[in-house]
Amino acid sequence: MKRYTVLLVAAFFFSVFSNAQEKVAKWDVFELTLKGNEQGNPFINTAFSAVFRHGNKEFQPEGFYDGNGLYKIRFMPNEEGEWKYLTKSNKAELNNKSGSFYCTPAERENHGPVSVQNKYYFAFADSTNYIPFGTTLYEWAFQSAEKKAQTLATLQQAPFNKVRMLAVPPYHKRYVEGPGKLTVFPFVGTEKENFDFSRFNPLFFQQLEKDVLALQKLNIEVDLILFRPYDGGKWGFDQMDRETNDRFLRYVIARFGAYHNIWWSLSNENSFIKHLTDEDWDHYFQVVQQYDPYQHLRSIHNADRIYDYKKPWVTHVSLQYYNAVRVFGVSPLLRDIYQKPIVHDEINYEGNIEKRWGQLTGEELTYRFWTAYIGGAYATHGEALEEGWISLGGKLNGTSPQRISFLRKIVESAPKDWLPLDQYYLLNAVGKYGAYYLYYFGKETPSEWAFSLPDEGLKDGMKFKVELIDTWNMTIKPVDKVYEVQKLNNYAFIDKQKSKVKLPGKPYMAIRITRLDIPTMASRTEGEKKN
Amino acid sequence: MKRYTVLLVAAFFFSVFSNAQEKVAKWDVFELTLKGNEQGNPFINTAFSAVFRHGNKEFQPEGFYDGNGLYKIRFMPNEEGEWKYLTKSNKAELNNKSGSFYCTPAERENHGPVSVQNKYYFAFADSTNYIPFGTTLYEWAFQSAEKKAQTLATLQQAPFNKVRMLAVPPYHKRYVEGPGKLTVFPFVGTEKENFDFSRFNPLFFQQLEKDVLALQKLNIEVDLILFRPYDGGKWGFDQMDRETNDRFLRYVIARFGAYHNIWWSLSNENSFIKHLTDEDWDHYFQVVQQYDPYQHLRSIHNADRIYDYKKPWVTHVSLQYYNAVRVFGVSPLLRDIYQKPIVHDEINYEGNIEKRWGQLTGEELTYRFWTAYIGGAYATHGEALEEGWISLGGKLNGTSPQRISFLRKIVESAPKDWLPLDQYYLLNAVGKYGAYYLYYFGKETPSEWAFSLPDEGLKDGMKFKVELIDTWNMTIKPVDKVYEVQKLNNYAFIDKQKSKVKLPGKPYMAIRITRLDIPTMASRTEGEKKN
Repeated sequence: MKRYTVLLVAAFFFSVFSNAQEKVAKWDVFELTLKGNEQGNPFINTAFSAVFRHGNKEFQPEGFYDGNGLYKIRFMPNEEGEWKYLTKSNKAELNNKSGSFYCTPAERENHGPVSVQNKYYFAFADSTNYIPFGTTLYEWAFQSAEKKAQTLATLQQAPFNKVRMLAVPPYHKRYVEGPGKLTVFPFVGTEKENFDFSRFNPLFFQQLEKDVLALQKLNIEVDLILFRPYDGGKWGFDQMDRETNDRFLRYVIARFGAYHNIWWSLSNENSFIKHLTDEDWDHYFQVVQQYDPYQHLRSIHNADRIYDYKKPWVTHVSLQYYNAVRVFGVSPLLRDIYQKPIVHDEINYEGNIEKRWGQLTGEELTYRFWTAYIGGAYATHGEALEEGWISLGGKLNGTSPQRISFLRKIVESAPKDWLPLDQYYLLNAVGKYGAYYLYYFGKETPSEWAFSLPDEGLKDGMKFKVELIDTWNMTIKPVDKVYEVQKLNNYAFIDKQKSKVKLPGKPYMAIRITRLDIPTMASRTEGEKKN
Repeated sequence: MKRYTVLLVAAFFFSVFSNAQEKVAKWDVFELTLKGNEQGNPFINTAFSAVFRHGNKEFQPEGFYDGNGLYKIRFMPNEEGEWKYLTKSNKAELNNKSGSFYCTPAERENHGPVSVQNKYYFAFADSTNYIPFGTTLYEWAFQSAEKKAQTLATLQQAPFNKVRMLAVPPYHKRYVEGPGKLTVFPFVGTEKENFDFSRFNPLFFQQLEKDVLALQKLNIEVDLILFRPYDGGKWGFDQMDRETNDRFLRYVIARFGAYHNIWWSLSNENSFIKHLTDEDWDHYFQVVQQYDPYQHLRSIHNADRIYDYKKPWVTHVSLQYYNAVRVFGVSPLLRDIYQKPIVHDEINYEGNIEKRWGQLTGEELTYRFWTAYIGGAYATHGEALEEGWISLGGKLNGTSPQRISFLRKIVESAPKDWLPLDQYYLLNAVGKYGAYYLYYFGKETPSEWAFSLPDEGLKDGMKFKVELIDTWNMTIKPVDKVYEVQKLNNYAFIDKQKSKVKLPGKPYMAIRITRLDIPTMASRTEGEKKN
């Protein structure tokens, strides 16, 4: 994306610029910059926002102080045509500034922000389907330029379209000493425990913005983690008072809210910030809800106390519960409990570290991914091999990413409204009744599968093709037979000839069954089969 | 229990009775009967309640019209000593009547009402542990006297201490025609669709009370199901308006609330009553919460829409989700989500009927029970063999009840605050760290188990005994070895000699591990081992 900046240093310039109307693509960022007063504490004493209007649409993003006497307001237009704005401030030089810009059609790869669609699913604002395949890169933004470039290059080849990352670095030895030493923090001050929580450090956020925009360029959503418990009593970023936290949230929203690829993750492992109760989190959710004009996705990632994802300001579930993807059937239950999209945002990592959360084999992590998606949910990857991907980024060395890529192609070629099938009785099937069925056998090693489908949507005589999927070796082999279904009883249809599908007796196999007499369904899976 | 009745036909008698003070045992029922006016509709136009006082304690149960001009108020005292009462009514003959009774110590088997204790557990009011092992007897109360006597005789021998039963019969052919024909309904009228919903039929409730009290005599809790969707457009009991439903709830509470063994199940399969929204159920929960002076347990049993059990008026989860007990690990997650006791109140039934919810083998139902309890949850039995136990009662013919009895003895001999162990990583263990461990292998058929316990609560040198439990054949065999633990890593302790426990390579096995150097733990399991 390009950033459009209007710098207004005086009313005179303003009128000039106003005549040569700026153009901003839909879901891109219009940025207004005003020269203001640097006196006092501009982070504390400045009320600054603007109303943007187009037809009946009205948005009121807050502005922010960006240092050097510059005040900015960012805005993401969501309709083509002329938008007019008028600033409001308690400071004369920032108040009552008006102007307009013209919103042009969205650029090719910008589908707008992601939101929840059809209760359990996600979609971009232009209705393009979005199916999250996340990865974890908590601290990648706080590494060297070289390392970050390497991370971005890796991501360009990886199957991931969402990154979970911290907005604020965790306390770590390497950030205080050694080559990875941090010099810029979100607040004015140094690591020597003398941060001035009343003053943000614009440079920190400017750098972070570049990283968020670099991911945006790769069409990767950013699940930006606002709070985290990882200070160990050192920097105090997890011990700030409510006033500071509120100000921090509004500042981050003012800076990042206009980026279409932003999601808000209120916290990582929130309950490890021990002094904050669920009622505190209710409050912070509501602050985000109130100040984000675009209502980006909002969730929170749990530690040992699961926040109530039913609460109205939570858009989707962002769960850390490893066992929920180790057995079948949990994700359908979670869908039914929460009636929201279920994202398993931490399911242990492929790795070989001493900590047991980073000891999965590639097979196991791939298995957990399949278990999530077969249950109508989503999962997030992580790697804790030598390079420490989840913390630092860099290169991926695991064996799961290519299998996740294989899974992603299968999922993206499936009907977008797939769901767990017959979910009170079946454990391992997802699909669309009468059209598409994906059965996954996980660690079971069946040598055959008696062709049988839940009755919903079926009629005698419907024809299906079957493909054997080896989820680990990444092969899809068609079975050379057309299956014609026949009602068995009130619950199931079987193959007319009572055929069984032969399976190789090894783990990690799946079966894909596609209706043959729906042209769109039969051809839908052709593309990725050839990969 | 005995029922104590004070019949006040005139103020004169009242003062006489008042001098010869009645005695009522703690958690038993004091019943005040007043002769009133029969004119008009006493169910609609009579406000009638009483305040009962003892020290600082005050309760205000509503009264009810019991037919024949008699108005009653029932009260369950929860403290010994003198209780005074004063009636309130909009009818002079029921208003301002005062009196007192003396509350004596509880009778031996009356431990008071059950409530939630320690977040995930239940206990009687006298702190006696209560671990639900329920069964389902939806319509037993609407059968012949002979059948009911048979059901009670069966229950006397059965392992069940909770019965789920309907307060109102479902529409069924047998209740309209044939020998099972019902003649008494909750409302005045007959099955010919002319019920007067403004008038209760006291006889119906008097009969139901006898059944509830018969179960009380067997120390069985009654999970009384207030609404149900099973009318198929016939009687209309599931289509009553809010005013009628509210009146019905208050009438049932007035009649049954003073019985210590009552639980309120707002509905069975609530979402099948299609016109009632979750907001409607919120309302009905709040009516029960408002009018029940004793705050008996409250939950609701779902169909295809799971009510939000996090809501504050829900005391425990009463779930129908079969797959949640088919795999390990779900109950611990449900505990963490809801932070309330988890009762799997419908997990399919042992049976051989055409409906697939009644087709479980005894092995499968036993397995599901174990899966529930190993996850720190509770389960409810049902049988759909020839006799139709879940509907009609009678005899039990299944193979699961005696296994459930075996399980119950094991559970009751375990530490009462057991919990799922290491629940983010382990799937199949419940117990108390450092003291007691129960591992269940379900359908897995291991031939050995490498002795390994989660590290919490352990120190090098602690000694344990191991018993092999065959959950199907109901045997408990001690392993002739003392296991001494030694730290393996940050997560586990293993046997010093790296011993493995030999298993018979068949399904449904469990291992019980008990600390030897805690005298109370070592002896705790002796009793039931000999059974």
